[in-house]
Amino acid sequence: MNQPDVLQEVDLHQLKVTDAFLGEYQRLVRDVVIPYQWDALNDRIEEADPSHAIENFEIAAGRKDGEFYGMVFQDSDVAKWLEAVAWSLCQKPDAELEKTADEVIELVEAAQCEDGYLNTYFTVKEPELRWTNLAECHELYCAGHMIEAGVAFFQATGKRRLLDVVCRFADHIDSVFGPGENQIHGYPGHPEIELALMRLYEVTDNPRYLNLANYFVEERGAAPHFYDSEYEKRGRTSYWNIHGPAWMVKDKAYSQAHEPLALQQTAIGHAVRFVYLMAGVAHLARLHKDEEKRQTCLRLWDNMVQKQMYITGGIGSQSSGEAFSADYDLPNDTVYAESCASIGLMMFARRMLQMEADSRFADVMERALYNTVLGGMALDGKHFFYVNPLEVHPKTLSFNHIYDHVKPVRQLPAEHRPRADLAGPLYLYSAAGCPLRASVRRQ
Amino acid sequence: MNQPDVLQEVDLHQLKVTDAFLGEYQRLVRDVVIPYQWDALNDRIEEADPSHAIENFEIAAGRKDGEFYGMVFQDSDVAKWLEAVAWSLCQKPDAELEKTADEVIELVEAAQCEDGYLNTYFTVKEPELRWTNLAECHELYCAGHMIEAGVAFFQATGKRRLLDVVCRFADHIDSVFGPGENQIHGYPGHPEIELALMRLYEVTDNPRYLNLANYFVEERGAAPHFYDSEYEKRGRTSYWNIHGPAWMVKDKAYSQAHEPLALQQTAIGHAVRFVYLMAGVAHLARLHKDEEKRQTCLRLWDNMVQKQMYITGGIGSQSSGEAFSADYDLPNDTVYAESCASIGLMMFARRMLQMEADSRFADVMERALYNTVLGGMALDGKHFFYVNPLEVHPKTLSFNHIYDHVKPVRQLPAEHRPRADLAGPLYLYSAAGCPLRASVRRQ
Repeated sequence: MNQPDVLQEVDLHQLKVTDAFLGEYQRLVRDVVIPYQWDALNDRIEEADPSHAIENFEIAAGRKDGEFYGMVFQDSDVAKWLEAVAWSLCQKPDAELEKTADEVIELVEAAQCEDGYLNTYFTVKEPELRWTNLAECHELYCAGHMIEAGVAFFQATGKRRLLDVVCRFADHIDSVFGPGENQIHGYPGHPEIELALMRLYEVTDNPRYLNLANYFVEERGAAPHFYDSEYEKRGRTSYWNIHGPAWMVKDKAYSQAHEPLALQQTAIGHAVRFVYLMAGVAHLARLHKDEEKRQTCLRLWDNMVQKQMYITGGIGSQSSGEAFSADYDLPNDTVYAESCASIGLMMFARRMLQMEADSRFADVMERALYNTVLGGMALDGKHFFYVNPLEVHPKTLSFNHIYDHVKPVRQLPAEHRPRADLAGPLYLYSAAGCPLRASVRRQ
Repeated sequence: MNQPDVLQEVDLHQLKVTDAFLGEYQRLVRDVVIPYQWDALNDRIEEADPSHAIENFEIAAGRKDGEFYGMVFQDSDVAKWLEAVAWSLCQKPDAELEKTADEVIELVEAAQCEDGYLNTYFTVKEPELRWTNLAECHELYCAGHMIEAGVAFFQATGKRRLLDVVCRFADHIDSVFGPGENQIHGYPGHPEIELALMRLYEVTDNPRYLNLANYFVEERGAAPHFYDSEYEKRGRTSYWNIHGPAWMVKDKAYSQAHEPLALQQTAIGHAVRFVYLMAGVAHLARLHKDEEKRQTCLRLWDNMVQKQMYITGGIGSQSSGEAFSADYDLPNDTVYAESCASIGLMMFARRMLQMEADSRFADVMERALYNTVLGGMALDGKHFFYVNPLEVHPKTLSFNHIYDHVKPVRQLPAEHRPRADLAGPLYLYSAAGCPLRASVRRQ
């Protein structure tokens, strides 16, 4: 194992970016994006569809009456805002912003259940359905984002309040999932918890978080298949049906769960899920000194970068499923290549670089950053371009339905639209890599 | 008006094709396709999904008990088989085949209602819903195909029996549709009746058929919109819902009914509908000496051929809606370009040639014939390739969903799949230009 112990990350408190280009982006996020998204989370942006994200927490905390509103993964917007604030505070202290964040953290803590559980969708709307639909309902995905926020806020400010909240939540998850007789032998439909648990392990040194991440990774794709057994157990109900009943349960490669990761040979399925998963696996391989997982990372990295990545650092060559296609199938015009996947690609690349200290990983990070990541946010910090085609003929877009996903702003693809009983707002992802509902003019 | 009266069609009874290439296709259709499709219509092809087309007529005629089965336009398969038989008999008499056809014609006559109405779907399955859903249910489309069969059989054999049947049917339609107070002020969602009525006019010299064709063409796209009023009148029920409720009613350009034809500037919507419609309009313009309609034909022909046709004679550059896209949007790989649309293109071109006597129309016919039309049928006469992409990478087809329509055999696109209460068989179209259910191995 070629572990470069000399590779140390820069302390963000010490880092000052003076470069006009990147420095301007830091300023833009700090001065515009963060306050703007805060207004969005609180439904104060008139031209945007309502977010309700903060209100969901207030309702879950019992501070307000009302119904849950939004996507099943609405909570992650709040988590991602908190993480963005954390890194911003490293760069430039801001007492007022920190106070606002502290209040949000207090609210999040108040919404946490007695046993450590934390998710406003299930707490408010379907408390009896907790942990019954991992394949489809983003429960561990939201947990992962909040864990990341807790870690970041601790690293940035030294404050432990949110870290303690997410440790309690992670401990709860560790009690629910595992090989034990009374535990769920499962894993998330949308990876994220794996990379989050590895970050939590790094700041806490608590091996149960590393072991839980390892459990989720190793259980993934095992037979008999967890998605099927939980589907039967809950009476064959399904949350998303746009591609047919329970399509997320059936199309297991969509979430890289069709077979154990050790057997997988190609980057496959939903591109964001793939790179989120692999970021966690690479982190785990390094800290667990797991040679098999390291080889898996190298193998799948090579397939992705050599045969399924665009020259722009875009990944996910098809709109259907926002997914990888096949080796060398890289259409320039119908490509999806969402900014979020390229952000996840940078996260995966960063873990590979920490593991291997090979410049080729840094090259991919740079390629994605300057093209598909930065290209996703307008210079005003309030408009986001989401997919990254390499060839567009604007006059044709509205005539040929193969381009339906090519929009001037992020719009949720069909498979992510909520059930009919939920509204279907437009969604944006912030350039910081976080799903954040933002100001989108209705089309 | 430049009407070339000298242009006379060859009498098919006198025409002998000795060319090895085209002669072999005639032989193939006569010796293989027609008998094979006859077996298919009678559900005697083991590896094909059931057709039930002949049985539907037997049930409608009261000769058999049972339920209607198949697509709402199932009858057209029988009509197209009869027309193929007619042209084959011109070339080579075949007493046994003619006897079989005579029996089918007797059956069709027996299935005709007292008032002239003829459609097994509505007669057997939903008699009370006759003429309530022109936008979606192919009722006038099936009528048109049967009228064409009646005309062809008369022209080929001199026998009037089917011609009399379809005249009674056309007279019934003429009584139902029109500007009168108690008539329906409507027109078909899928054009076909227009070109069929013009053919019927040519053999009968009865001006009511020309006038009825003219009514359907002129009423098309008028405001307030017929699709909307019949939709309201029948209580907002919808037959096809795959693109959302009543999408065929809402997407009026799909069937060239978004505005009056005289105002339309581009080839638009479902490509087969467009060329079927225009074949009828060109025939009408010539015989009615209608300069405005002639200009419409020339204008839309030019747009189609100069800006929306492939070098192969393929039209319909997108799979969604099997439709035209926009000027110069001609992707090589995701194109639909179904064989049937190119057959319709030849039909339109033939009418234009009869009107203008300009070789450019013959050039397009030839281009389509040798590429997208003949290319649609395998040399064994039993397998059909339906879409005509110019670029295919076979290994990629099953990975990228933009190629879902590219199949080695004809498969109904999503928008043509029947309601859940009907089975969804695979469909083929014969190289004779007729929708015919054929032997398709289940995939």
